[in-house]
Amino acid sequence: MTTDTRWKGLARAKQQAILDAIPAKWRIQEPIPPAADLRDCTGTYIQQFLTPREIEMTESDAVSITQHTTVGLWSAVDVTEAFCHRAAIAHQLVNCLHEIFFDEAIAAAGVLDQYFAQHKKPVGPLHGLPVSLKDQFHVRGVETTMGYVGWIDTFEGVKGDARARTFESELVKELRNLGAVLFCKTSVPTTLMAGETANNIIGYTWNPKNRHLSSGGSSGGEGALIALRGSPAGFGTDIGGSIRVPAAFNGIFGLRPSSGRLPYEGVANSMDGQNIILSVVGPMATSARSLKLLTKAVLTQSPWKYDPLVHELPWRSSAERTVQELIDGDPCALTFGVMHHDDIVLPQPPVRRAMHLIERVLRRRGHQIVNWRPPPHDICLAIARQTFQSDGGEDVQAHLDLSGEPPLPQCLISKSDSLNARQIAALNVRKRQCQKSHLDYWNSTSKLTSSGRPVDAIICPTAPHAAVVPGQFRYIGYTSFVNTLDLTSVVIPATYASKLLDRPEPRDPASFMSHEDMEIHSDYDPLIYDGAPVGVQLIGRRLEEEKILCLAEYIQAFCVEPFMSAEKTQVWGC
Amino acid sequence: MTTDTRWKGLARAKQQAILDAIPAKWRIQEPIPPAADLRDCTGTYIQQFLTPREIEMTESDAVSITQHTTVGLWSAVDVTEAFCHRAAIAHQLVNCLHEIFFDEAIAAAGVLDQYFAQHKKPVGPLHGLPVSLKDQFHVRGVETTMGYVGWIDTFEGVKGDARARTFESELVKELRNLGAVLFCKTSVPTTLMAGETANNIIGYTWNPKNRHLSSGGSSGGEGALIALRGSPAGFGTDIGGSIRVPAAFNGIFGLRPSSGRLPYEGVANSMDGQNIILSVVGPMATSARSLKLLTKAVLTQSPWKYDPLVHELPWRSSAERTVQELIDGDPCALTFGVMHHDDIVLPQPPVRRAMHLIERVLRRRGHQIVNWRPPPHDICLAIARQTFQSDGGEDVQAHLDLSGEPPLPQCLISKSDSLNARQIAALNVRKRQCQKSHLDYWNSTSKLTSSGRPVDAIICPTAPHAAVVPGQFRYIGYTSFVNTLDLTSVVIPATYASKLLDRPEPRDPASFMSHEDMEIHSDYDPLIYDGAPVGVQLIGRRLEEEKILCLAEYIQAFCVEPFMSAEKTQVWGC
Repeated sequence: MTTDTRWKGLARAKQQAILDAIPAKWRIQEPIPPAADLRDCTGTYIQQFLTPREIEMTESDAVSITQHTTVGLWSAVDVTEAFCHRAAIAHQLVNCLHEIFFDEAIAAAGVLDQYFAQHKKPVGPLHGLPVSLKDQFHVRGVETTMGYVGWIDTFEGVKGDARARTFESELVKELRNLGAVLFCKTSVPTTLMAGETANNIIGYTWNPKNRHLSSGGSSGGEGALIALRGSPAGFGTDIGGSIRVPAAFNGIFGLRPSSGRLPYEGVANSMDGQNIILSVVGPMATSARSLKLLTKAVLTQSPWKYDPLVHELPWRSSAERTVQELIDGDPCALTFGVMHHDDIVLPQPPVRRAMHLIERVLRRRGHQIVNWRPPPHDICLAIARQTFQSDGGEDVQAHLDLSGEPPLPQCLISKSDSLNARQIAALNVRKRQCQKSHLDYWNSTSKLTSSGRPVDAIICPTAPHAAVVPGQFRYIGYTSFVNTLDLTSVVIPATYASKLLDRPEPRDPASFMSHEDMEIHSDYDPLIYDGAPVGVQLIGRRLEEEKILCLAEYIQAFCVEPFMSAEKTQVWGC
Repeated sequence: MTTDTRWKGLARAKQQAILDAIPAKWRIQEPIPPAADLRDCTGTYIQQFLTPREIEMTESDAVSITQHTTVGLWSAVDVTEAFCHRAAIAHQLVNCLHEIFFDEAIAAAGVLDQYFAQHKKPVGPLHGLPVSLKDQFHVRGVETTMGYVGWIDTFEGVKGDARARTFESELVKELRNLGAVLFCKTSVPTTLMAGETANNIIGYTWNPKNRHLSSGGSSGGEGALIALRGSPAGFGTDIGGSIRVPAAFNGIFGLRPSSGRLPYEGVANSMDGQNIILSVVGPMATSARSLKLLTKAVLTQSPWKYDPLVHELPWRSSAERTVQELIDGDPCALTFGVMHHDDIVLPQPPVRRAMHLIERVLRRRGHQIVNWRPPPHDICLAIARQTFQSDGGEDVQAHLDLSGEPPLPQCLISKSDSLNARQIAALNVRKRQCQKSHLDYWNSTSKLTSSGRPVDAIICPTAPHAAVVPGQFRYIGYTSFVNTLDLTSVVIPATYASKLLDRPEPRDPASFMSHEDMEIHSDYDPLIYDGAPVGVQLIGRRLEEEKILCLAEYIQAFCVEPFMSAEKTQVWGC
């Protein structure tokens, strides 16, 4: 058997095992229409496979679900079964799962129901809430492949390691303590270093709102699953945009906290130990308040006692109150820095429209808008790229070599020279200087605001395009600067690409700011993008998770949702 | 002119310039007795050069000084002049200063006095408090050599850099905002990577309590100056023990906070950008409460707004209250983990006695003592050593090469192979796993305590010996594990080596735990060590500065001071 045959056989068997884990009763019998006939498989399309009760439960957000499950209105088993069913359908539609453990989930939910029946109180704030996990988290009973064929039947690539199928990541333990029900793990691109989700095991994870397009990456399986309401909330990871890109592409919410806020302990990773820019764990969900629920809940577990890299920062209600007072102030005195583009790549028309819409809505509510003109972003981008390439691609190659599988074309990592200690130190210094210059700029905006405070948050694109056409994810600069600077960022769904509203606009070739700018400009096709979600980032300072989550909730409730409803009736013009 | 002649000329000129900055009226006229005739130059010896008023001021701790200066009882100018005078004497006795700027200090103090006269209130909580700084901090008007001859007349080795003599480190700006008066910068060993303080510019910094011995390193100038009361408080840095070793050797207090607590922004460093183990900034002073004053004061400046690596952690009074409640509880319910040795090197008799004394005193006050048996310390030590050698010594060599000066024999860095990116990542993973195993061990001690809480703090040696005989600083394991684990540690003076009490104890050669253990055992000489300070560490979890400073204050007041007085009359036996 050749290497090629061997890894393909392993991959196919694993792919089949995932499908086989779906109970027969939940398999879609009729053929699924091709994307050309069924662009959007959310909403009514997926609802046809579900009972009204299942639809009610699965279309509730995490906050609403826990409002029912923690007081005994909904049983954990009923909710879990509804999400298992919907997740099973979701996987068949867009290919978003890596591990399925519905039986264990329903059994765990049963234990929660017994607990509630006996004690008349929930196990914790997430009692009975199904939570999905990107396939980097270790959960007992199932494996973690992270998309690598060579990781099948191993622990992070090591055969015979006793931790396989037994070890649990710190966050997983905490979620169990909180009463959450774990039921599936979601797809990732091999190596995690890609803006689309595809691997040699399950293939490509498609965008549920527009099946011609990508679900984004690297937490693309989470993004697609949650958009299909196959999960109310889940956890991804983000080192260059891997939570935010799929959140934006799938029309959901995602938080990239600063490093050291949520526990990464015991989570599989690419280039583990690279600590120039740390990958972070963060929640993804269908509402901003759900992100807050999950973040707050995890922090009640004092993760700093179990993860040496988490700072002792419990949820700070005082920060929450401060923001609420600003919101409730009359006149509401918030100031937003708006960055329509980063001087490197001009976003495509749907993203430009989304940015203008958000700006207009915020202005209408009386908020001050400041034109955000930070220090050059090309430095942030160069630092991120050099970081991702710092080991010359050796780590990802070693994991690919375990099976002999080829890399994916979407992978952002290529072979290069590895940096040595002095070069890494120099990169760390450049990164710190870059962070310092942005910090100083942020402080300096107090001169521009009527409040006298520096800007409260920045609003900017998540990517230069809506959910991307496969193969056209070319530019990570809109998300990776947040990682370089270690800021807090929440993605908020803003609109959908529209072939009617988002006409291509010719540009003078002399106006292109970069090669990527030119490429991304010419990539734009209003027909294929039609219906693709667009999400924008709301960015706070480092470790300002409380503030930025509260602002996200406010913007969702008072700015985006009324507008999104209006949009549907197309009364708002442009 | 040969290279050798050139650097020696530059070094001598700089050495002379430092001496020349001492006003003629403060020069010691008569010859200073050799160490054989004058072992201890603190106390009455140095007092002979000062007025009673100067003695009163300079022998007050930072808290007492600010209690006078912030209400107008003492003028900033008077206090500053007293400390300038005493620092000038101190330098002549033990060679502890790199930069002297008394005129600027007295002028700045004058401005503070004017402010107070005009506004009837202090500029800030450190109004009129002289604060010394290790010669890594940039202060306008003077240079920073960090002991490198090649840095003379440059900015961090770069000739013609406009920041020379103008740029100020973030902490320096914050100290000015708080009302502190900066007046001198203190000596360091070239490269900073040494447990003794010596360089080719000023020579050797001697221990004021025993002039045969070292002042420790790398913040040895701070340690010696503060021990001589030439400064009430100062700031050092610590990557392997550089605050704690000189604090212990000089009989003063020193805080090594966790990384990200106090601002390092804009401070010169060795191997800048090495971020496997981060060097940290911390205060050194003559009392635990002074460390608290300085830490708390700096945190009022919101350093996280100006230093991208500082976490948003203001001083947490709630943590302070929690500890105070434990202390005030009846019975007082604190539990200390005591580690008499680390299974690698058995401390010499004075340190063993100090540890037993502290343990006994704590037991007598009703505290529970748990035998601290953590995961192996040799792993922590290996991680620290590999970190310090990670660039193969290239950075320090490059700075030595600027002038052609030779390295010092005390330097812990040697030439080796530089690590590459994957090796550094692997080292970071080992470090994280090491931190995790210690965290789990710490949590597990809840099973050993009557309180049901994990151990409140650890007590262990700072070094295997009292202030060391020059050339015999062989082992950093007692301090560097704190850096590897990123814990919080305060050094508390415990006792003095005594030729009468600390007799050498023969050991079976089979009992030696390591080569260093054997060497350090045979190094011990009761005659030369007689009078050398011994300090122990009080260690808290990561970022528990509030807790550990409060405990240090408690231990100083109720455990150590009564005992230290008793010791003087030798009534306590052993």
